[in-house]
Order: sequence, then C-alpha cells, then structure tokens
Amino acid sequence: MLSKNTLKFIKSLQQKKFRRLEGSFFVEGTKNVTELLLSDFVSTHLLYTEKFYSQHQALVDNFRGESFAVTQKVLESAGAFKSNDSALAVAKLKDNKAFAIHDSDWVIALDDVRDPGNLGTIIRIADWYGIEKLVLSEESAEFYNPKVLQASMGSFSRIQCFYTDLKLFLCESKIPIYGAFLDGTSIYHTKFEKGGILLMGNESNGISPEIEQMVNQKVTIPRFGHAESLNVAVATAIFCDNIKRSK
Amino acid sequence: MLSKNTLKFIKSLQQKKFRRLEGSFFVEGTKNVTELLLSDFVSTHLLYTEKFYSQHQALVDNFRGESFAVTQKVLESAGAFKSNDSALAVAKLKDNKAFAIHDSDWVIALDDVRDPGNLGTIIRIADWYGIEKLVLSEESAEFYNPKVLQASMGSFSRIQCFYTDLKLFLCESKIPIYGAFLDGTSIYHTKFEKGGILLMGNESNGISPEIEQMVNQKVTIPRFGHAESLNVAVATAIFCDNIKRSK
Repeated sequence: MLSKNTLKFIKSLQQKKFRRLEGSFFVEGTKNVTELLLSDFVSTHLLYTEKFYSQHQALVDNFRGESFAVTQKVLESAGAFKSNDSALAVAKLKDNKAFAIHDSDWVIALDDVRDPGNLGTIIRIADWYGIEKLVLSEESAEFYNPKVLQASMGSFSRIQCFYTDLKLFLCESKIPIYGAFLDGTSIYHTKFEKGGILLMGNESNGISPEIEQMVNQKVTIPRFGHAESLNVAVATAIFCDNIKRSK
Repeated sequence: MLSKNTLKFIKSLQQKKFRRLEGSFFVEGTKNVTELLLSDFVSTHLLYTEKFYSQHQALVDNFRGESFAVTQKVLESAGAFKSNDSALAVAKLKDNKAFAIHDSDWVIALDDVRDPGNLGTIIRIADWYGIEKLVLSEESAEFYNPKVLQASMGSFSRIQCFYTDLKLFLCESKIPIYGAFLDGTSIYHTKFEKGGILLMGNESNGISPEIEQMVNQKVTIPRFGHAESLNVAVATAIFCDNIKRSK
C-alpha cells in the first residue's frame, strides 16, 4: 500500500530542489511511463490504475521497483497533470555526462532556451530526426522539469542531454557550428557538412554575442511573409529537416 | 479615467461567451498591441503605461477610441498576462467571412486543432510563409482566445481565419488538398502544385475519417529517428517550408 511518506516524496519531485536532493524525478501518462519503463533509466516507483494494468500488464508485472495499484484520484494528487487515469513512475536522475562526438554526428546546442515546453518539443524533434545529442547552456530549462518531459512525448528516454559551459564546449568543437540567425545564409543554399552543431538561441534574445563568436556559419530560414520571427522549437524543426533532407 | 465598469468589461472578455456577447476581444503586450493598432481591426480601448507611451507616442496620440494611462498593476488586473508593463487594447471581432481562393493560393485547413497555443503558433508560421488564409473546423480552438493571440506574436493581424463545416468546404475546393498523415508520400518527393490546401489534423487523432475522404494526396514528413509523431504546429511549419522551397 502507498504510504503517506511515499506520496509526499513523489509530490516533492515537482520541485527542482527536491529532484536534486533526492536524485529522482517522475513522469506521468501512458506514453511517458511506458517509454521510461522500456528505457535504461532506473525506475524505483510505479503507480498505476486498473486501466493501465489491463493494457500494460507485462510492464507492471516485470517492474523491479515498488509498484502500487492506485485510483485516478491518488495519481492526480501525486503528479503535476490535472488529469491522469493511467500511471506515474519515479526514476533516478542520470549523471550530467559529456558524450563523445564523431565527425558524422549532428548535435543540437541550446544557448539559454528557457521555456520548458520549448525544450520538450525540441527533444521530440531531435528524436524524430535521429539527432540524439543535445548540449545546453547551464541557464537553459531543466531536462527533468515535468513540463519538459511531458512535451517530449516519451522522446526524453532516447536523447542524451549535457549541460555545460556552452562557450567552452563550442570552443573545443571539431565539427562545424551552424548558428540560427535572422540574417544568415539561406538554409536552401547551405551545404551542410556530414556532421555539425546546430546552435539555437534564447526565445527573446537569440544567440548571445559571446556565443556568436564561436559560430562558423550563420544560417537563416527564408521568410515569405511578415512574421518577425519563428518560435525556437519550430525553427529547430525546420533546420533539422533541411539538414537531414540534404544528406 | 478608467471606470470600474470599463475594467469589468475588459476582464469579461477573457471568456468566450462575453467576447461573443460584446463582439469584442483584447490583446496584451507591446508586440500584439502595436500590431493591432497598425492593422485594420477597429480598436475601441487602449490601456497603456508610461513606458509604452514613451516608446510608442504616435500610436497612442493617434488612437481614435478611448485611451487610458494606467499603472502596471491595473494592466495586469485587466488582462490575462501575469506580467504586463506595456499595454492592452480592445477591438471589435471581425465577422466570420468566407474568402475567395485563387488557383495559386495556399490555404491551411485545420481539422479540429484544439490547443490554443498550437493555433497561435500555426498563425505565426502561416504569416512567416506568406500563407494568409486559414480555414478551421468549427470545433477548432477559437481565434480570439487570449492564448491564441499571444502565441501568434502579432501575426493574428495579418491572417484571415474562416470557421466552417470543413467537409463541405473541402468538397467544394478547386485546388488540390494535401493531407498530413504518417503514411503518405514523402514531402521530399512530392511535387506540390502552384496552389493547394494543406490539411492538418487534431493533436491526438489526426485527420478524421470523414475528412480523409476529401484528401487528394497524403503527405508525410520523413522520420530519421524514433519519435512517434511531431507536434501539429511543428509539422505544419515543416510542410510549409517544403511547399515554399519548391516554388
């Protein structure tokens, strides 16, 4: 039976400071929970409804942590979703580790993308385009924020994120850095190399001046109408599509 | 001086039923307010801070409706934004009118896109790509919802939206209808005609079966990784980019 203390522990993970303190996070809803359970994350707790059990019996039966059959009401009191009739799972945070980058890799780098919904959407886009590596400035939205995980629609389980001093990281890069600007070369006329870093800037201010110095090529999405700019996740998707279609 | 009744009237416009009843809506923030004032919408009320006035004096001085210098606190109590230190403007709703469609026009049609943030983002994308006509099923998110207008980042003032029986509308179309599916022809290998309708489906269910019958060509964004799908606004942007780059 789910104790008050466990419920309190899960609820606390809505806050970043408790995620840090406990080294844990949670995801909610069928898509994110099933993707988590099938991934290499170490899950410690699973709360599920009868409905979830009827559809994912094997996942529940093979769960190695503590699992609890609960009502929808309990699920909703534990998590951040207004409505959740399926499941919630707690897992261990992964270490913030650098990854090897090969010449043919594509990497997305985010210079201070602050909105959790944007980061989650970018993770989903990266996963769609098979770009598995994301590098983020330390001020960017936090990967384990429930809104990031929700917007990622399960893709969080397949994308490696590394938070670091972005300037230093870019300085050491051996692959070309393509920066998203409003006044660069059209992506329709850019010959993208086999691998590279796609660098996207902050929602309001774009790429910061000190990071701009690291860029090898400024690239731009051609505009046909009058909008001043595009949302950063939308722009990321268009860049990825143009990079991948040219391969 | 701003009366309690005017403030109450503005606040009521956060709700759809009062927008209908009063035939009015409002927008907030510098970008949306300035775009509104420069558009052909009929604005009736303008609330602005000293800061907004110092930056947009001519717009305020030439305003033909009732205008009020207010504090940030009053602005925030009137609108839906948590924080607003610039302005808020009320304008008349436009009639829901059909528009002429020419052979070389591109039109975006939405089959039940429910999320206001998605609709607003799609309006911004349409404006970026110079696609000025949007047709929406009657169950789609409402154009004048504050979240739609906010996400549109001013583009609401340049895009014509028409809510109608989508099946009937598509049935009468003289230009080809391209429907977004997960199992259509790759957009990289689609020859888009000079004009056409790009049809996007609901966030969870895609294009409904009865609307699917109207589609002339099913089209798909190639996937390189593992995400199950893309957000509908993100997908709209990638389609628009592929359509426009091929012209």
